[in-house]
Amino acid sequence: MNPLLVRNVQLPVSDAVHHASDTAVDILIEKGEFQRIGPNLEAPPGCVVEDGGGAMALPGLVEAHTHLDKTLWGMPWYRNEVGPNLTDRIDNERRWRAATGHDARAQSLALARAFLAAGTTRLRTHVDIDTDAGLRHLHGVLATREALAAQMQMQIVAFPQSGVLGRPGTEALLDEALRSGADILGGLDPCAIEGDPVRALDTLFSLAQRHGCPLDLHLHEPGSMGAYSLDLILQRTAALGMRGMVTVSHAFCLGDIAENERDALLRRMADLDVVIVTTAPPSRPVPPVAACRAAGVRVVGGNDGIRDTWTPYGSPDMLERAMLIGLRNNFRRDDEIAVALDCVTHAAAAACGFGRYGLARGDRADLVLVNAQTVAEAVVARPVRQLVVSAGRIVARNGVPA
Amino acid sequence: MNPLLVRNVQLPVSDAVHHASDTAVDILIEKGEFQRIGPNLEAPPGCVVEDGGGAMALPGLVEAHTHLDKTLWGMPWYRNEVGPNLTDRIDNERRWRAATGHDARAQSLALARAFLAAGTTRLRTHVDIDTDAGLRHLHGVLATREALAAQMQMQIVAFPQSGVLGRPGTEALLDEALRSGADILGGLDPCAIEGDPVRALDTLFSLAQRHGCPLDLHLHEPGSMGAYSLDLILQRTAALGMRGMVTVSHAFCLGDIAENERDALLRRMADLDVVIVTTAPPSRPVPPVAACRAAGVRVVGGNDGIRDTWTPYGSPDMLERAMLIGLRNNFRRDDEIAVALDCVTHAAAAACGFGRYGLARGDRADLVLVNAQTVAEAVVARPVRQLVVSAGRIVARNGVPA
Repeated sequence: MNPLLVRNVQLPVSDAVHHASDTAVDILIEKGEFQRIGPNLEAPPGCVVEDGGGAMALPGLVEAHTHLDKTLWGMPWYRNEVGPNLTDRIDNERRWRAATGHDARAQSLALARAFLAAGTTRLRTHVDIDTDAGLRHLHGVLATREALAAQMQMQIVAFPQSGVLGRPGTEALLDEALRSGADILGGLDPCAIEGDPVRALDTLFSLAQRHGCPLDLHLHEPGSMGAYSLDLILQRTAALGMRGMVTVSHAFCLGDIAENERDALLRRMADLDVVIVTTAPPSRPVPPVAACRAAGVRVVGGNDGIRDTWTPYGSPDMLERAMLIGLRNNFRRDDEIAVALDCVTHAAAAACGFGRYGLARGDRADLVLVNAQTVAEAVVARPVRQLVVSAGRIVARNGVPA
Repeated sequence: MNPLLVRNVQLPVSDAVHHASDTAVDILIEKGEFQRIGPNLEAPPGCVVEDGGGAMALPGLVEAHTHLDKTLWGMPWYRNEVGPNLTDRIDNERRWRAATGHDARAQSLALARAFLAAGTTRLRTHVDIDTDAGLRHLHGVLATREALAAQMQMQIVAFPQSGVLGRPGTEALLDEALRSGADILGGLDPCAIEGDPVRALDTLFSLAQRHGCPLDLHLHEPGSMGAYSLDLILQRTAALGMRGMVTVSHAFCLGDIAENERDALLRRMADLDVVIVTTAPPSRPVPPVAACRAAGVRVVGGNDGIRDTWTPYGSPDMLERAMLIGLRNNFRRDDEIAVALDCVTHAAAAACGFGRYGLARGDRADLVLVNAQTVAEAVVARPVRQLVVSAGRIVARNGVPA
């Protein structure tokens, strides 16, 4: 791989202003990492030179929660006439997959490529593991990860979409998934879906302990039910010494319980470094990002499913997700919108454990150029990605894969 | 103006499927209106022929509530560090305008052109009238309306952003505005901003009666305060025989009062044909679109401000507003998303009183072509506007003004 010199870009500055800095810099990339960043760099021999045209350089965007295996991205339009409950959506998807033989490999690849074209270079995806499909979806997504290994860093969560208790054999499949390439153990709704919160969580935590892997649990349960499940999760995180190894996705309950109860849970989450992933849905209570962060809890962002049998919405554009996080949290000030961007950049990379992240020397050379004067403008205007570089390779120009 | 023949487009069909129809049609436009729609039309002499390429044809999009005079669209980025209250935002804007001499004419023109390029051909804008600026903003927006008269149908609401009671002279300015080209009388928050709901509403209704013009009132007040103001509005609408002449914008209170109280208000609104305009903000309670429509109340969509000193968000893309309405109301099924689109097309045109609207013979020839298989896809994917026709003229191609 030749060195790459990206000339004439603006770095987002980290002071309170969040304007692009006044001085354009050049960025020299060698061996897939940032080598030098500064004004008027010299191009080494054999170097490819790109003119940034004064664009703003963001680090590669990060998706902390999606479901690549479910998507219908690029397929003929799926007519959604599904009922309103979580179980309606789970059952509908199972029937639909049985009827169509959904190709998780092709679909996850199509969506992952769309993510790359929109500047996302690191991504955590949940992959359905159940007794109907076995590890079929996992194998499809593993193939996609392999195909894109040079361009995208991908974490895979082994996710029992139908619960781990209801269908005997699921636990063994999760175990096999974690031996076959999945990095993280998933789970969901210990009360509302599993129906036996203690046994479900004991099963999941015990499996994670055996594999020494992190947990990332979907918690859709509202109000006091969700708070109860969250309490059980925190108890086990503490008792088993899993500080910093547990993520709770959605955590809607933190948006609709009393503030004092919420704050008590947030204090425990901060102590145990339990991360919250929010999709910031406009139609549900959500964990308030500012209050969670003020309590010391890390909150990062993700889409959840994108254009699948669950929902027609979602987009591989993580700047759009940052905008939705901003809108949901009524972030209007520039400093607030910078927090929304942080949810899909630095904070997300750190929370997922994606290393060598950022725009400093030695970081993996993931870079997104956008025509924006400030970080806030990048989020609200979501300009086309002028250039996307991943691990030192140009992977897209003007929103189109290179 | 030469006749225009747009060949090979799909019409969104109105049955429950909301797929594009299977048969491509041609659309013949003469003298600014739709003349014939059907397969394989013959081009009359001198006709301009456009190939639609199988795209979906939507009617021109409709913006039912924006503030063209406030926008900073196209200007250097405005750093927002404004406080959280409505009065903070009103005061900040007044100070900012005094300091900068904001040019409402240039700015409203820039944003209106962006609306056109994104397919919006009819638009209702509120224009600030106050004792600082007098009618300056109105004159700016009137100039924009004049400049775009051949391309965009625009309604202007004379809007007392700082209230009609607090600053003596405002009522006279509103009166003058309505004699100078404003079509509709605006107002806001009779309790929270005006501080004297009875006197404020009596002043506004009396002024509207003198001019025989409709009212479009901002009602941000939450919960029981908002319900109280809404009750006063409905009393006056009934007593003064203003059925079908009153719009309530925002009406947040309908999203956070008890269902039985809400439904009682909705029944009265339906009887009086009071229209609700929603921006569907993700961070506030909102009138639930499905419940309002089920009660017979018309609900339509708008942005509110777009990239101004109040908010960095908003977009001249009304398909994005439809998406946000869908997300806020958890509309996932295709038939639900068709309702979200209706809020920025047919329902909005009818509620605002924009006539000759639609895709039928004799309608004003406003047409938007997008690459989408279904109405739902048009909303969630928001494809670039391949072609925009307004009153028979091509005004934009591929998102760029023609």
